Amino acid sequence: MTQLVTFGETMLRLSPPNGERLETADQFDAGIGGAESNVAVAAAQLGVDAVWLSKLPDSPLGRRVARELRGHGVRTGVTWDDSEDARLGTYYLEYGGAPRGTKVVYDRANAAITTVMPGELPVEAIQGASVFHTTGITPALSGATAETTAALLETAAEAGTTCSFDVNYRSKLWSPEEARETYESLFDHVDVLFVPERDATTVFGYEGSAVEIAHGIGTDYDFETVVLTRGEAGSLALHGGELHEQGTLPADTIDAIGTGDAFVGGFLSRRIHGGDVDECLAYAAGAAALKRTVTGDVAVLTHRELVEVLDDERGDISR
Amino acid sequence: MTQLVTFGETMLRLSPPNGERLETADQFDAGIGGAESNVAVAAAQLGVDAVWLSKLPDSPLGRRVARELRGHGVRTGVTWDDSEDARLGTYYLEYGGAPRGTKVVYDRANAAITTVMPGELPVEAIQGASVFHTTGITPALSGATAETTAALLETAAEAGTTCSFDVNYRSKLWSPEEARETYESLFDHVDVLFVPERDATTVFGYEGSAVEIAHGIGTDYDFETVVLTRGEAGSLALHGGELHEQGTLPADTIDAIGTGDAFVGGFLSRRIHGGDVDECLAYAAGAAALKRTVTGDVAVLTHRELVEVLDDERGDISR
Amino acid sequence: MTQLVTFGETMLRLSPPNGERLETADQFDAGIGGAESNVAVAAAQLGVDAVWLSKLPDSPLGRRVARELRGHGVRTGVTWDDSEDARLGTYYLEYGGAPRGTKVVYDRANAAITTVMPGELPVEAIQGASVFHTTGITPALSGATAETTAALLETAAEAGTTCSFDVNYRSKLWSPEEARETYESLFDHVDVLFVPERDATTVFGYEGSAVEIAHGIGTDYDFETVVLTRGEAGSLALHGGELHEQGTLPADTIDAIGTGDAFVGGFLSRRIHGGDVDECLAYAAGAAALKRTVTGDVAVLTHRELVEVLDDERGDISR
Amino acid sequence: MTQLVTFGETMLRLSPPNGERLETADQFDAGIGGAESNVAVAAAQLGVDAVWLSKLPDSPLGRRVARELRGHGVRTGVTWDDSEDARLGTYYLEYGGAPRGTKVVYDRANAAITTVMPGELPVEAIQGASVFHTTGITPALSGATAETTAALLETAAEAGTTCSFDVNYRSKLWSPEEARETYESLFDHVDVLFVPERDATTVFGYEGSAVEIAHGIGTDYDFETVVLTRGEAGSLALHGGELHEQGTLPADTIDAIGTGDAFVGGFLSRRIHGGDVDECLAYAAGAAALKRTVTGDVAVLTHRELVEVLDDERGDISR
Amino acid sequence: MTQLVTFGETMLRLSPPNGERLETADQFDAGIGGAESNVAVAAAQLGVDAVWLSKLPDSPLGRRVARELRGHGVRTGVTWDDSEDARLGTYYLEYGGAPRGTKVVYDRANAAITTVMPGELPVEAIQGASVFHTTGITPALSGATAETTAALLETAAEAGTTCSFDVNYRSKLWSPEEARETYESLFDHVDVLFVPERDATTVFGYEGSAVEIAHGIGTDYDFETVVLTRGEAGSLALHGGELHEQGTLPADTIDAIGTGDAFVGGFLSRRIHGGDVDECLAYAAGAAALKRTVTGDVAVLTHRELVEVLDDERGDISR
Amino acid sequence: MTQLVTFGETMLRLSPPNGERLETADQFDAGIGGAESNVAVAAAQLGVDAVWLSKLPDSPLGRRVARELRGHGVRTGVTWDDSEDARLGTYYLEYGGAPRGTKVVYDRANAAITTVMPGELPVEAIQGASVFHTTGITPALSGATAETTAALLETAAEAGTTCSFDVNYRSKLWSPEEARETYESLFDHVDVLFVPERDATTVFGYEGSAVEIAHGIGTDYDFETVVLTRGEAGSLALHGGELHEQGTLPADTIDAIGTGDAFVGGFLSRRIHGGDVDECLAYAAGAAALKRTVTGDVAVLTHRELVEVLDDERGDISR
Repeated sequence: MTQLVTFGETMLRLSPPNGERLETADQFDAGIGGAESNVAVAAAQLGVDAVWLSKLPDSPLGRRVARELRGHGVRTGVTWDDSEDARLGTYYLEYGGAPRGTKVVYDRANAAITTVMPGELPVEAIQGASVFHTTGITPALSGATAETTAALLETAAEAGTTCSFDVNYRSKLWSPEEARETYESLFDHVDVLFVPERDATTVFGYEGSAVEIAHGIGTDYDFETVVLTRGEAGSLALHGGELHEQGTLPADTIDAIGTGDAFVGGFLSRRIHGGDVDECLAYAAGAAALKRTVTGDVAVLTHRELVEVLDDERGDISR
Repeated sequence: MTQLVTFGETMLRLSPPNGERLETADQFDAGIGGAESNVAVAAAQLGVDAVWLSKLPDSPLGRRVARELRGHGVRTGVTWDDSEDARLGTYYLEYGGAPRGTKVVYDRANAAITTVMPGELPVEAIQGASVFHTTGITPALSGATAETTAALLETAAEAGTTCSFDVNYRSKLWSPEEARETYESLFDHVDVLFVPERDATTVFGYEGSAVEIAHGIGTDYDFETVVLTRGEAGSLALHGGELHEQGTLPADTIDAIGTGDAFVGGFLSRRIHGGDVDECLAYAAGAAALKRTVTGDVAVLTHRELVEVLDDERGDISR
Repeated sequence: MTQLVTFGETMLRLSPPNGERLETADQFDAGIGGAESNVAVAAAQLGVDAVWLSKLPDSPLGRRVARELRGHGVRTGVTWDDSEDARLGTYYLEYGGAPRGTKVVYDRANAAITTVMPGELPVEAIQGASVFHTTGITPALSGATAETTAALLETAAEAGTTCSFDVNYRSKLWSPEEARETYESLFDHVDVLFVPERDATTVFGYEGSAVEIAHGIGTDYDFETVVLTRGEAGSLALHGGELHEQGTLPADTIDAIGTGDAFVGGFLSRRIHGGDVDECLAYAAGAAALKRTVTGDVAVLTHRELVEVLDDERGDISR
Repeated sequence: MTQLVTFGETMLRLSPPNGERLETADQFDAGIGGAESNVAVAAAQLGVDAVWLSKLPDSPLGRRVARELRGHGVRTGVTWDDSEDARLGTYYLEYGGAPRGTKVVYDRANAAITTVMPGELPVEAIQGASVFHTTGITPALSGATAETTAALLETAAEAGTTCSFDVNYRSKLWSPEEARETYESLFDHVDVLFVPERDATTVFGYEGSAVEIAHGIGTDYDFETVVLTRGEAGSLALHGGELHEQGTLPADTIDAIGTGDAFVGGFLSRRIHGGDVDECLAYAAGAAALKRTVTGDVAVLTHRELVEVLDDERGDISR
Repeated sequence: MTQLVTFGETMLRLSPPNGERLETADQFDAGIGGAESNVAVAAAQLGVDAVWLSKLPDSPLGRRVARELRGHGVRTGVTWDDSEDARLGTYYLEYGGAPRGTKVVYDRANAAITTVMPGELPVEAIQGASVFHTTGITPALSGATAETTAALLETAAEAGTTCSFDVNYRSKLWSPEEARETYESLFDHVDVLFVPERDATTVFGYEGSAVEIAHGIGTDYDFETVVLTRGEAGSLALHGGELHEQGTLPADTIDAIGTGDAFVGGFLSRRIHGGDVDECLAYAAGAAALKRTVTGDVAVLTHRELVEVLDDERGDISR
Repeated sequence: MTQLVTFGETMLRLSPPNGERLETADQFDAGIGGAESNVAVAAAQLGVDAVWLSKLPDSPLGRRVARELRGHGVRTGVTWDDSEDARLGTYYLEYGGAPRGTKVVYDRANAAITTVMPGELPVEAIQGASVFHTTGITPALSGATAETTAALLETAAEAGTTCSFDVNYRSKLWSPEEARETYESLFDHVDVLFVPERDATTVFGYEGSAVEIAHGIGTDYDFETVVLTRGEAGSLALHGGELHEQGTLPADTIDAIGTGDAFVGGFLSRRIHGGDVDECLAYAAGAAALKRTVTGDVAVLTHRELVEVLDDERGDISR
């Protein structure tokens, strides 16, 4: 039985080897990545029956997305766009150490998903699921994706499916004002909100300490759970009026892209399996740390590895 | 002093290794390719001072195009598009032996060049040049490229620069009828026409033997030189009422893409250096054969290599 | 609904690049391969809902097998062996042109599947399926696999599921006499037999022309369909007393391994979709030819590609 | 003249690139590794005439082992097993930063060496050698390797050859109790014992500080030299009743596997060349640090490099 | 209009992957490198019209050098040596972490440039340029390069072109005494001197603090600007009697080779564009830090990236 | 006991992948190659105890040569040149199909071997050997190598060791006249001469059919055996007045370099093991054909493979 449904865009990801540049590299590593499918993959590897909904071009690159996700254990509910011009969004990732920094070049305009309509997706999957998850990237892609996001959240809410939403503000897609207006129009149906501290400030205007921000969000909106993610500084959850904190696990970073999605995937997987908020946060932090050790957008990991990491961590703390 | 100016789109080219598929390959070889820049590269390597005109996104991928062309010895007259959404057209190449066949997946819509206007390009380069060359792909990309193509041909014609045009019909971009109408509107300024036999039939409706087709074109239009390219069957030029024939040189094909462009580059380089039609055809055939032995769109070769190939060829024939 | 169930061993496949040797290569390409999963993959890509049954070690390498098969669209019904010593069979493939020849080094003894028992597999999948397929490799692996093969064929036969069997004799695993005895004990339940001409001679002692061999098998045993595969010489099916012939499609071979499995996958996919024997043979030949152009054991292809290949083929013949 | 003879198993080593996983990587780097051959390689590169004794399958993979060792300057005294099923032990190495950790998956059961008998090896090499070395891994592989280990130690002891033994306890092969019993049965012939601090505790039950453990071993057994290795904490030798300490040299670790073997190889090479215990420990620490900078099991280094490293180190200390 | 002219040797650079050794690696990465062309590349990417003068073999490897430099935006003024034995200097680079250290193996004797004569180079480029730059490596290569260096500096000085000189003492080419004598014979024409602190001591015998050394050079010679480079300790410029200091920017080093050349390129580019000494030093430090993040000798970077790095840096400092 | 001693230069070999060019490739495959060591490797793999004599730079690249040869089973008798400038000869290999052709760029002047003197080599190895082999390349390298070649042949002849010599004329090193004069001065000591038909004509002026050339050489000089190699046309031996012919075995060529050396290695291995001339020629042809299927200069093969190839061949012929 489906436990988690996610909806969003997955792109082709192309990256030159570390130390080489997009201008000069002769080979690009090819993979796929997308916030919502990354979450589904992380959860699926942790034992969740997960489905990803989207629209893809009926092309080798579109099939590649479905193929890789299936390989990672995610079932796909995809509408295939067979129009001549249907394209897959693409992003180029250039790793770079300090002072250069890792950079992303997007080429995602007019991707097949930008024309998706609710009727093209198997919404019944959402109705029977435990959790429906999407992010603040999806409604930013086009009017159609904004509409479909709203419709799917409504469908989920009506069916009693828990709605999870990761703000994930992307400044290259829209302004903070536009984003806020759309986000707030969706929040009625959202039960679990993931929000990076930076977005809480940029988009929603919160200031002050992380605790103050979390309480601010808790006061202004009506979420069951608010999870504030703070990069190296760890994370914070407000649930039932109580604050839960979680540190970041030390990790040797090979590839930081997708860390936040692994965090959400870890959190939701534990929640679906009945964990309390502290457990959810611990799973989230563990999955995020493991993700950092693996090349690519998606967290290739096992439940056993995650448990070992958490056991080590607890061990270290108890001494 | 500039001898050859070409104008057109150059794309990023991504290809999995031979035997692997776009759906499953983990690495893509990255390069660039475009009919008109391929011609400029071939000519530049054969000693022609060549300039390529175009519009590129001001991004690492756009800079990559200029960088590679400069490396091959071509000077660039590029307008840089620094808008957020400016993109580089991309094509995916999947090699495949029989019965599968090599396939190309285009992702070229809305590339930066589709907004190019004549005023954005250094047209004075054309005015001082010996030959201006473009292809039937360029006007198919957008209204703006069609307008600019017409304007540049007119500029060249007025300045007494020889105009060369390779029909290169692309069925994925427009219908034969649309193509024909546009082509014919440009032919007034064209002096040297390269036309694949297949296009002569599909677009212009010629039937019959290659000789009949060449004479038909020679009768219906007013070109100085018509070169009919016939794949494995060689080529045929009609010039001053006389027919000139050239066979294909045997080649071990590593990568067939760009063969036609190397042919044109070889032909024009010899013409610019004062060769007669037979010499131009021989250079064209030699450059095309050498191209086939090299990976990538562009012909990496030297004048000395081409001369050796032609000497061998003549040697073989004279015995 | 499940249409095809296959059962057998899938191994890790390691191969140095073409021209390099197992003794000296510094890198091996890694993939997976197994006759029965290869068939399932080919069929799945041609639109069949296919399930593969087996036993795998609960290790990264075991998970790799399930992961790749899922990616190719095959569902897996796997028993996971979590014993310390559970291992994945491995084979090393060294490409080699004439006069050396491609060679395979097996390291498959004591693989997890050699302890599989019928009760460990989801046999209900077979009961609802249209076709159950296995090969003559599986019963050769161990007493347990022999028993399980027999039990699954019996289950299928009882449920009215068509039983397909590819003889695929492996001289490194047993003698012709042992093989024949086991095969004949299974033939009662087999409806569709695939047998390489060479095996018909070596194992069953048939001599004479291909037609004579096919008729001999048809007379001596009671199969619904007998398909004799003859390498370059094409294939021959005896069905309802009638002979059907199919030539081999010309192909540029990148990797010949798995060609026979693609043939079977093509045949069964067409049969499941209601094709007659001639259509099944044509699909089989087309899938086999496409396989040859792709690196790896499995046929990465699409239904559309196969149809194009067959249309071309028919086109060539009709002229 | 042979100076060092080692005896043990060498395996094929397969590893995906750093950041990739065994489940998903498309290429594995291929090499070889084994504790005793690693020691021989390190010593050979430091100027010792070293021979490695073992049993290998008469297959490309078996020949690969002999080939690589010869390349590194080690002579081989190998019995070739030409039985059909003879296999080479294999291990898969997956690099992983914190918190995941580097992991090893063994597939070594039933390797050719598990059937080795003393009579199959050129034991005369041991009789003329200065030092014979083996490890606690070898007797754990099978009854035959245990017997052969005992026999070779006895041969060496009788011939007056110094016997060196590295405990190297492997929990995946046997229990601490089994290991201890076997080890103690061999200790009569051992002159130089290398023992990781962790093994001293796990297998032999020593507790307390490193100094206490070293003295404990010195008291309970009758070794000429006991070297306690302590990872990052350096090493400690008890020799003639005196303690000698050596710190770890700082190293940028590319590949930690084989560090302990390089340590032993450095120690023994210096001992064979007449160095005192402090020099032996310094060489050991230097070789170990150099090993960490090189990919693969074996220490590719030169005597000159080692001397430079030690000079730098002494320089730093003396200032 | 030409702004910067540099003169010197550019070599083929071959390097095994990090962690592998020249003795054992199966593949070498191929690139080019040379102090003076590295400077030209850095400056060209920062918007300077730069020309590099040299002599190259008329061979594929020689053409490779010109090709890569042109790609990076540098124009080339090259004499082609078509003698049979003309060769390109080559260097092998082996990365190595502590305690091994990165090592360079030179194979540069008798390169084509060692026969260069002033008359073979387009010296008029120097006469119209803003800055002429060469290094202390060039006169060490041969008598001919020493003569040509002197002649070009004289030409530049006479034409009023600013002369820049980076001491860059190479102990493998000559003794400190020989170097000093040659350097001092050239200093009359030098306006801007770059000198590593280590060379100031080794070659010129200065002792004391960096400030004392800078003042010593300022007193003993008559340079417009002296820039003392101090590795991790930053740099120091003495100009018009005033000292200017610049720290090193933190950088994750992928490849340290060429850092000093990027420093000089950054400095000169800013000076050519009218920057004051502090700005020149800042640009120099920024370009050097960016270089460290990129594989290869040359700094692949953009002006925008450099500005961002400097803005971040100033931001960090002002807080 | 040593059976075969060879003497000559071994170079570093660098080659871009097939289809890429020396001017543009980003990676070169690295290996080693030299006519005389290639012969030694082929013979060693066929069971001959072979030693290779030479002079190498005491550098990582020099050590690489010794390391690879030892790996292939050849013992090395090398003088190490530790002078600062000692270099390893290098050659660049660019594969190219028709009409381009595979090309070699040599960079071998002033290699360490060009200063070798007889006293630097362990000539006693030659005295005890069955066969001493060198080629016409070695005396062309320098006066010192010419002297040493003469001295070693004399040593061998005096000791009763059979002297084998492969003419292998290299037009890039000397003129036919110079070569002939040197060769003839050495022929007194030569027992077995290998000479390509082309060299027999170019250097020695023989004309006519292969049989006429062989008889001409047999008449003019006093060799025990003359082997004329004729590329695709096979080979011819004149021995004891009788002619023996051998065809070329069909082979799929991956890398043709080293084919002639594998031929000689196969011939000499069989001769050393007591084969008659026909057997020697068959082994030679088989080893040459196997070589063509393997990347690199040296023939990685086994005796068993060679026997299988010859059995197949005889099988084909006898039917």
